[in-house]
Amino acid sequence: MKKTNTGQNLYNKAKKIIPGGTHLLSKRPELFLPDLWPSYYSKANGCHIWDLDNNKFTDLSHMGVGTNSLGYCNEFIDKEVNLAIKSGNMSTLNSPQEVRLAEKLIELHDWADMVRFARTGGEANSISIRIARASTGRDKVAICGYHGWHDWYLSANLSKSENLGGHLLPGLDPSGIPKSLVNTVFPFNYNRIDELKKIIKENTDLAAVKMEVVRSVEPDEGFLEEVRRLCTKNNIVLIFDECTSGFRETFGGVHKKYNVYPDLCMFGKALGNGYAITAVIGKREVMESAQKTFISSTFWTERIGPTAGLATLNEMDKIKSWEIITSKGKIIKENWKKIALKNKINIEITGMDALATFVIKSHNWLKYKTYITQCMLEKGFLAANVIYTSTKHSQKILDKYFECLDEIFKKIKDFENDLDLVDNHLKSSVCHAGFKRLN
Amino acid sequence: MKKTNTGQNLYNKAKKIIPGGTHLLSKRPELFLPDLWPSYYSKANGCHIWDLDNNKFTDLSHMGVGTNSLGYCNEFIDKEVNLAIKSGNMSTLNSPQEVRLAEKLIELHDWADMVRFARTGGEANSISIRIARASTGRDKVAICGYHGWHDWYLSANLSKSENLGGHLLPGLDPSGIPKSLVNTVFPFNYNRIDELKKIIKENTDLAAVKMEVVRSVEPDEGFLEEVRRLCTKNNIVLIFDECTSGFRETFGGVHKKYNVYPDLCMFGKALGNGYAITAVIGKREVMESAQKTFISSTFWTERIGPTAGLATLNEMDKIKSWEIITSKGKIIKENWKKIALKNKINIEITGMDALATFVIKSHNWLKYKTYITQCMLEKGFLAANVIYTSTKHSQKILDKYFECLDEIFKKIKDFENDLDLVDNHLKSSVCHAGFKRLN
Repeated sequence: MKKTNTGQNLYNKAKKIIPGGTHLLSKRPELFLPDLWPSYYSKANGCHIWDLDNNKFTDLSHMGVGTNSLGYCNEFIDKEVNLAIKSGNMSTLNSPQEVRLAEKLIELHDWADMVRFARTGGEANSISIRIARASTGRDKVAICGYHGWHDWYLSANLSKSENLGGHLLPGLDPSGIPKSLVNTVFPFNYNRIDELKKIIKENTDLAAVKMEVVRSVEPDEGFLEEVRRLCTKNNIVLIFDECTSGFRETFGGVHKKYNVYPDLCMFGKALGNGYAITAVIGKREVMESAQKTFISSTFWTERIGPTAGLATLNEMDKIKSWEIITSKGKIIKENWKKIALKNKINIEITGMDALATFVIKSHNWLKYKTYITQCMLEKGFLAANVIYTSTKHSQKILDKYFECLDEIFKKIKDFENDLDLVDNHLKSSVCHAGFKRLN
Repeated sequence: MKKTNTGQNLYNKAKKIIPGGTHLLSKRPELFLPDLWPSYYSKANGCHIWDLDNNKFTDLSHMGVGTNSLGYCNEFIDKEVNLAIKSGNMSTLNSPQEVRLAEKLIELHDWADMVRFARTGGEANSISIRIARASTGRDKVAICGYHGWHDWYLSANLSKSENLGGHLLPGLDPSGIPKSLVNTVFPFNYNRIDELKKIIKENTDLAAVKMEVVRSVEPDEGFLEEVRRLCTKNNIVLIFDECTSGFRETFGGVHKKYNVYPDLCMFGKALGNGYAITAVIGKREVMESAQKTFISSTFWTERIGPTAGLATLNEMDKIKSWEIITSKGKIIKENWKKIALKNKINIEITGMDALATFVIKSHNWLKYKTYITQCMLEKGFLAANVIYTSTKHSQKILDKYFECLDEIFKKIKDFENDLDLVDNHLKSSVCHAGFKRLN
């Protein structure tokens, strides 16, 4: 019997001294298995994680919420990071690595001329919005997708609290956002060009359209091209937020696959394989506007970030990691489909291949999700219904996972015939669906 | 003859692909010695820095802009960081180190109950403002000091572009800030309780007063106490920004020295001795409001930050670093005074002891500053007119520095008698005074 008490106990302590318990919503134990999730790790390597009681798990869930596409503790990247530390992570002078990483990102995106770095996705988002506003002299922004925690974005919820509901943040109250920002940000839904057209028509003073290029579903034919055309026609800065999608299907932004090019583009997550580094790249005429305003931070000058970025890109290039993780994602999706069909479970599969997601179409879905996570944990997997693939996920690991999922789906089929049955099998309270105040 | 071309050449390349050239204004070569500053480093250790041509310098300037009070490459801290990397910097689960660091910061500040971490000072600033606004349901903020690059702060310049002129950002145009944020942020000058009273009187809906506890000058008797009293009386959240002042005069916030306690307090810079980690600490009833809003970021969950924080606090505690760096700062200030007096140079000395600053009272000051930096560089020092002391600054190093400064001040005395003379001695264009667009 695995022990998970140490992590749960620490989490209970954490909730008393860290409001919200964790520093990333997606790492809340309540989103997985409220009372039994190991919560904290002592060690991570490849696609394995050890909890505080030294129980070993195989990560078929978030892989660091998408950061570690090359696996935990990648030896090539860590070697470079160790050298950076040995020669001083910080000094009064600047790190040459940031210039080299900027050159590399420009080389990978020939439409881009200039780069600014930050250390979190939220910051990169705010930088790109600042630059777009400075460049156009306008304030309003149309958005599609999830773009972080800052005021500019959450202000979308000021006029109607469910505005961001379709953009990954159901249940979010925009408390603490200046009320004067009302009607500066306008959400539109993916593939709904009519909604974007309406926003542009009603707001002739849009500074930017910011969107995730792709997340849950593929773009309709002509959708991205029409967004680009509308932005160009109306002198609106088009920003692609590729913090999540970048480096998962191409060596760079997924927009390269669609042949549609933004004015600014952001990268995060996978860029440093688990080390904090994010980037805004863009066309010279827009990026130069960064000089008309003030965008500056002490810790943006530390050396680990750009060092890890360079080493990650180098390693990605060597093994063509985007092809590997995409092909693994395809295998996972195919097997989900097969196992569901076999067990007569009605599932919906979405997401880019390298960040595959399924849901079971049932009123009991959250209970089933909890049950899946619970069973997987007992089998030694951290796994719910979202898999960010990494190059370290071997076929052997996947086969073992599919075998477990088959058993679980078989059980769920039984639950579907007796809707209260699942309750008898849950050892934890049901997982949360999204943002929720913790007690 | 030292070579500095490699760094200057790289910087010229950087300016073409990174708008503004560097990621922190204070690390712009133009602020030191425009045409000759080494600009980039290959290695840093103790209080020494090697440039890209392997020239060795002793840092008697910013020490990483205040991050490295325990010196570059501190062996005890780097050892812990290396262990963190070896056991995985990131995973799907959380880092226990963040809970331990939260406990430690609360232990050091018995008025505080809860903690949130970020990775940059700008983020910590935005988090504290969000929490204060969510807690009070109000939007307006009174500020005194420098508080980062985010919209909420720079909006102070919307009504009058020189509003932030006295707060470290002369020449700053608030381009790219939503115009609807006008009249949400109101600056007051340090020790001017009358100005704060006026702001409070005219704005009954203030969410927060945010200020640096001390920077250039000591607080007048009763000033901080009166700020605290006004905030309590008007239900305003008092936020001390100790990103710069923290851990330089006490083991924690400098507010402990003055016995005046805020509702929220931020730390940055010195907290991780050169690794990116910043914190907001606060009283439970205010901090809990973080749960009413959304404050979340992937890279806030990496492990290096809190690991470095814990190791830094441990090492500070062991050697009482705040006493060491303060006493070194006192020695520096005394010697500046002595050397100036000897050479009949009219100087003004300001700043906390551990971040001592002088200016020469002359119309030629910027030229003299450039000349000082130029001469110091030739003598093997990175040194202008601001010294962030570190525990690694030995008396021998300081003595050598004072000797050099004596020679330079003697020369400047000659310049004072012939105001054009300095121009003949400058090998670089004159240093910039603050924010300025680069070509």
